[in-house]
Amino acid sequence: MKEQIRIGILGYGNLGKGVECAVKQNEDMKLTAVFTRRAPESLKILTEGVPVYSAADAAAHANEVDVLILCGGSATDLPEQTPEMVKYFNVIDSFDTHARIPEHFANVDAAAKASGKIGIISCGWDPGMFSLNRVYASAVLPNGKDYTFWGKGVSQGHSDAVRRIEGVVDARQYTIPVDEALEQVRSGSNPELTTRQKHTRECFVVAEEGADLARIEKEIVTMPNYFADYDTTVHFISMEEMKANHSGIPHGGFVIRSGKTGWNEEYSNVIEYSLKLDSNPAFTSSVIVAYARAAYRMAKEGMSGCKTVLDIAPAQLSAYDPAYLREHML
Amino acid sequence: MKEQIRIGILGYGNLGKGVECAVKQNEDMKLTAVFTRRAPESLKILTEGVPVYSAADAAAHANEVDVLILCGGSATDLPEQTPEMVKYFNVIDSFDTHARIPEHFANVDAAAKASGKIGIISCGWDPGMFSLNRVYASAVLPNGKDYTFWGKGVSQGHSDAVRRIEGVVDARQYTIPVDEALEQVRSGSNPELTTRQKHTRECFVVAEEGADLARIEKEIVTMPNYFADYDTTVHFISMEEMKANHSGIPHGGFVIRSGKTGWNEEYSNVIEYSLKLDSNPAFTSSVIVAYARAAYRMAKEGMSGCKTVLDIAPAQLSAYDPAYLREHML
Repeated sequence: MKEQIRIGILGYGNLGKGVECAVKQNEDMKLTAVFTRRAPESLKILTEGVPVYSAADAAAHANEVDVLILCGGSATDLPEQTPEMVKYFNVIDSFDTHARIPEHFANVDAAAKASGKIGIISCGWDPGMFSLNRVYASAVLPNGKDYTFWGKGVSQGHSDAVRRIEGVVDARQYTIPVDEALEQVRSGSNPELTTRQKHTRECFVVAEEGADLARIEKEIVTMPNYFADYDTTVHFISMEEMKANHSGIPHGGFVIRSGKTGWNEEYSNVIEYSLKLDSNPAFTSSVIVAYARAAYRMAKEGMSGCKTVLDIAPAQLSAYDPAYLREHML
Repeated sequence: MKEQIRIGILGYGNLGKGVECAVKQNEDMKLTAVFTRRAPESLKILTEGVPVYSAADAAAHANEVDVLILCGGSATDLPEQTPEMVKYFNVIDSFDTHARIPEHFANVDAAAKASGKIGIISCGWDPGMFSLNRVYASAVLPNGKDYTFWGKGVSQGHSDAVRRIEGVVDARQYTIPVDEALEQVRSGSNPELTTRQKHTRECFVVAEEGADLARIEKEIVTMPNYFADYDTTVHFISMEEMKANHSGIPHGGFVIRSGKTGWNEEYSNVIEYSLKLDSNPAFTSSVIVAYARAAYRMAKEGMSGCKTVLDIAPAQLSAYDPAYLREHML
């Protein structure tokens, strides 16, 4: 049996559970600890024989874990947790507040350099796989333009916003890329597209009995930031239909760059990367787990500091060794 | 003016010309030398004021070039040239004989380590961008299957094979992925596909006047290795039509991996990467030029030896610095 990478999980929600499932698929890894802010004895995890500890005691268990995966939220958890935990562990998070990445990077980098650990931030699919596709494509086609489309998929933040409206019992919001916009981009015509032209939003809403549906619909479609700039469709459905047809968390999207090559820019080129995911958290955690392997390897090589997917070579993620990759996948 | 990376080209065919065009699109680079096996004075290049030297004298001009791009063929040129030139230069090639990559890597690695230079091999789109997509996708979805489709595009090797048939004046062969196969793969059903099910081949042939067209067609469709395992369509056309409609070298293709996530593998996921290229050599050379930037940076950091796209982090290719990439593209 080869030596296995010992993975810890901090925060056992959808993402933490996804990490647990992804670790199971990778023979060179094993789950060795779960840390929770809930009462540890109240938590039932899927993997047998793995201890659940209080998050407050995490540092005391640092020698049981090679890479700790932080599964908290970007708004308040990760800005605190990642710089704190990297004092004791090699860590990875999925920090996805794009505007605050430079600040988060600086905080994690300082703490990681002080402790001699590796901290990978903003790992997943966007930021993550989409980011590296934006960087590769723009480096290869410097004279071009890139487009990111999201969906069709459930936006948790938008679903929550609808749920906060008076008279709404439950809601699910799908972000949907506009087919015509995708086709224009794929044609290589480099169109200028407004927010409204790129995506539509579709809401499925369970309302309270007797609620004013017209008022709810108006509150949704005119909600600033969330819906006002989009064409939004609202469907009122029963709780049974919600449970039967909208309990999943699918997502996906497209990164497309079109650009010109040739002495007189006479050649068009289109690079397209797309994802179609039945479960957003299960895929996000699969990406994170692959990068956990890279974190382990970088730490073994004596590296430290904050890294992102842009700093890590593809071979570092793979369970196969470089010679195998060259022979079979290059 | 920032310091520019000085690029040299060895071999001025379609690929070498493509490199010249790609360098023009990157402000942090300039072309400083072209080396040819033809008589240097007979060569007219597009960039003004750049010297053309004899390939035999290349080593004498090593101090004029930061990265030398080798634009010869994989069959006989590169196996000799790359290990030889890396004695004097940081080099990149587009060696694409997949089966011989391990041997080529070993030769270039030994020579590059001895000289303290960087040698990047097998750079382009396949091997190249397709390879790294195969590696990323398989690392992220270990429980899955991947598929590579090529086309629609011109295969130079197959076109040449048709041209060698008696009675053929000119020929162009297109490789075409089968739509039904693509759709099956995208559905996530992980089909087993034969060679015949994945691609068809279409040939446009200019025949000599009075040639036996039925015999030519039969020789094409039954040709072992090249056509016998495929459904091949042959069209006889005039030289005028060939020139008007088939003078380009378009290409492209798809790398698709579908795989399962979830505790019981209950979720399907499809990752798809595709290219649609008006000019195969112009795009290939754009990829090579981006990796020339990485070669320059790795050499500056004191690294040496043979590298492939799998060993190089995405940020190394970009003209933007890491902080800019984190702020704007992550």
